[in-house]
Amino acid sequence: MRQPDSDSFAELDAAPQPASGVHDPRSVGIVETKYLTLFEPPNPLVLANQATLGPITVAYETYGTLNHAKDNAIFVCHALTGDAHMAGRRSSDDRKAGWWDELVGPGKGLDTNRYFIICANVLGGCQGTTGPGNIDPSTGERFGLKFPFITFGDIVAVHSELVRKLGIDKLLAVIGGSVGGMQVLEWAAKFPDQLRAAICLASGPRLSAQGIAFNMVGRRAITSDPNFAQGNYYGDGKGSIINIETGPKLGLALARMVAHITYLSEESIEQKFGRNLQHREQFTYDMSTEVEFKVESYLNYQGQRFVERFDANSYLYLTRAMDYFDLNRDHGELSKALSRTNARFLVVSYTSDWLFTTAQSKQVVAALVKEQKHVTFVELESPFGHDSFLLEVEPLQEMLEPFLSQTHLSAQTR
Amino acid sequence: MRQPDSDSFAELDAAPQPASGVHDPRSVGIVETKYLTLFEPPNPLVLANQATLGPITVAYETYGTLNHAKDNAIFVCHALTGDAHMAGRRSSDDRKAGWWDELVGPGKGLDTNRYFIICANVLGGCQGTTGPGNIDPSTGERFGLKFPFITFGDIVAVHSELVRKLGIDKLLAVIGGSVGGMQVLEWAAKFPDQLRAAICLASGPRLSAQGIAFNMVGRRAITSDPNFAQGNYYGDGKGSIINIETGPKLGLALARMVAHITYLSEESIEQKFGRNLQHREQFTYDMSTEVEFKVESYLNYQGQRFVERFDANSYLYLTRAMDYFDLNRDHGELSKALSRTNARFLVVSYTSDWLFTTAQSKQVVAALVKEQKHVTFVELESPFGHDSFLLEVEPLQEMLEPFLSQTHLSAQTR
Repeated sequence: MRQPDSDSFAELDAAPQPASGVHDPRSVGIVETKYLTLFEPPNPLVLANQATLGPITVAYETYGTLNHAKDNAIFVCHALTGDAHMAGRRSSDDRKAGWWDELVGPGKGLDTNRYFIICANVLGGCQGTTGPGNIDPSTGERFGLKFPFITFGDIVAVHSELVRKLGIDKLLAVIGGSVGGMQVLEWAAKFPDQLRAAICLASGPRLSAQGIAFNMVGRRAITSDPNFAQGNYYGDGKGSIINIETGPKLGLALARMVAHITYLSEESIEQKFGRNLQHREQFTYDMSTEVEFKVESYLNYQGQRFVERFDANSYLYLTRAMDYFDLNRDHGELSKALSRTNARFLVVSYTSDWLFTTAQSKQVVAALVKEQKHVTFVELESPFGHDSFLLEVEPLQEMLEPFLSQTHLSAQTR
Repeated sequence: MRQPDSDSFAELDAAPQPASGVHDPRSVGIVETKYLTLFEPPNPLVLANQATLGPITVAYETYGTLNHAKDNAIFVCHALTGDAHMAGRRSSDDRKAGWWDELVGPGKGLDTNRYFIICANVLGGCQGTTGPGNIDPSTGERFGLKFPFITFGDIVAVHSELVRKLGIDKLLAVIGGSVGGMQVLEWAAKFPDQLRAAICLASGPRLSAQGIAFNMVGRRAITSDPNFAQGNYYGDGKGSIINIETGPKLGLALARMVAHITYLSEESIEQKFGRNLQHREQFTYDMSTEVEFKVESYLNYQGQRFVERFDANSYLYLTRAMDYFDLNRDHGELSKALSRTNARFLVVSYTSDWLFTTAQSKQVVAALVKEQKHVTFVELESPFGHDSFLLEVEPLQEMLEPFLSQTHLSAQTR
């Protein structure tokens, strides 16, 4: 069974949804991931570090219908370990919907009756878009650490090209949370005329030093695992990228565990688990008991789940791209980065998010205000920490509906 | 060179202090660690899990002079990875003073002209007091994971016995920060008549679920390291416990790195390192660059330093004891735990401490108020996070002087 990303409590809470979920009138139903190959020779993508890469295969999904004017397309940028499968189900017996299914569908916040929604796996990822786990056509071997260094600028360049290839000149909106929100900002800076609206959730113009520190620990856990083998852990087969047996599963699980803590607020973790024990009423008083507390069992589970669905090399590349992302550095100052776009901005932060704080969102808002751009900023009250953008769908829905309608209207009357 | 514990920025900032530091009139001068063996057969210590342990050697240091009335003794409980060497220097060419040297000495907050200060390494530690790295007399081999499970109750029982053996019936005060503060609370609960004052800094009645989660990640990093070898990594020699070559140094460094992040505030790490690069002005855009940012270099350094001075098995035992510590659970409710002592309490929290928050200190204060105990509570403004109790010595000094004087006066007039 496929393991969609949620980075969230919701995974554990949700009882497996019945297969009849595909018949839910508010579901996009059964969906299929599509693939497009871009940047084929002799036109490879020139990366931020001046290396070239191509061909690049992109895995993407679409929901809803592109209208005749081609002005109703919305691109969704997924978060660090997400994928293109954000809504609907793979098959009629798929027990789990896409990672943002609550937000995407007929009558939902991203209303497929009105909009054409696109979501694509990122460059460097491991869910269908070209990444370090894929075969390097020049050698016939997996890229591994020979995969070129990539930035969010490169990731957005691929998505931008995908949108053009789909025949869309201008997106109604680009939306994303966390590092998805970073991609939104990058898009507005790099392709300022390709979007009418930019919706940036639980994100910021650059990662904090604390965030860099946590990422470093995660990467170190992976590279310290003897099974990492300098990134050449895929075994002999040319099959699936995800190879639990031969890969650095202990290190990758550790990386996920430490990252996962940063996605939760102290408040939510306390409320959900507190100091409750997992298997008994009393302490075992035994050092061989690895899991004594419920919160340990939960983290353990998150680590286990993650290694079943994610490639360690992708984790290294994408967290490094996250560290590097810095609109201030790239453009001298943040306001300059955002000066060229006329997109309308919606910036949302969450009170209990300590990975991407409200202060970071406010930096984006301040830069936009300085450049006299159209910006709406909302700090939402939520106990769920960084994961709030995935979990608190209702208030988001309420904001998206008028914001997108208004953007669409202004597009049509222009 | 010995590596004192500071868990702090101060280490990096401080230029090596000149050897003449021992001649500083406010230094306690050259000190020597002393050793006492307790719980010798046939009277072993009965541990919380009902196992017995003995003999137990305790490493301790004292500063100042015990007065004739024996009413001027103060016991200092060190933090997770600390040791008995809290003040002064080992020799005239020792370039680094003890871990709380700024607070202990003639005319300082813990004034050695007036008080007799005792600090001892904890049971389960690796700095002279019996722990998993020592030889099990029953087998002639290192204990390793055969060392019995220990709690803060057991740790305090050893210290309490040490104090009695030193001929002191009643301590003027017990003071400690972080898990040292937990030991202070445990002491007041377990030996309520052995102390006149309890000073609890940056601590709480039990670790948060988030704290348990971080500890779990640290332990997992150690046990995932192939060099851990089920705790039997000491090599053939019977020499020093700290054996960098054969031990799980990568895992232990990782554990330290993740813990270290929790000792700092986001604010302080941002101010000190921000997103500054370590070796160059521009990004390398190269995945083989492990250390690109200053904060990565700093964490790396902290990890390296730690493995030179700490034993992985001790880290496992002491973090587990930290997880288990729970006065509410042990006594039904916190107020009951603190109901039997008549000690005067000073409880101090720090605004930017997110590992032991002000809310946790307030739980202690509320329990004491409920039991009509004497308690002074101060939340100190500080940007240094959990490490504040080590770094913000001046405001502490200002409070300690009158608090200890008053306690001493009331002891003498009783």
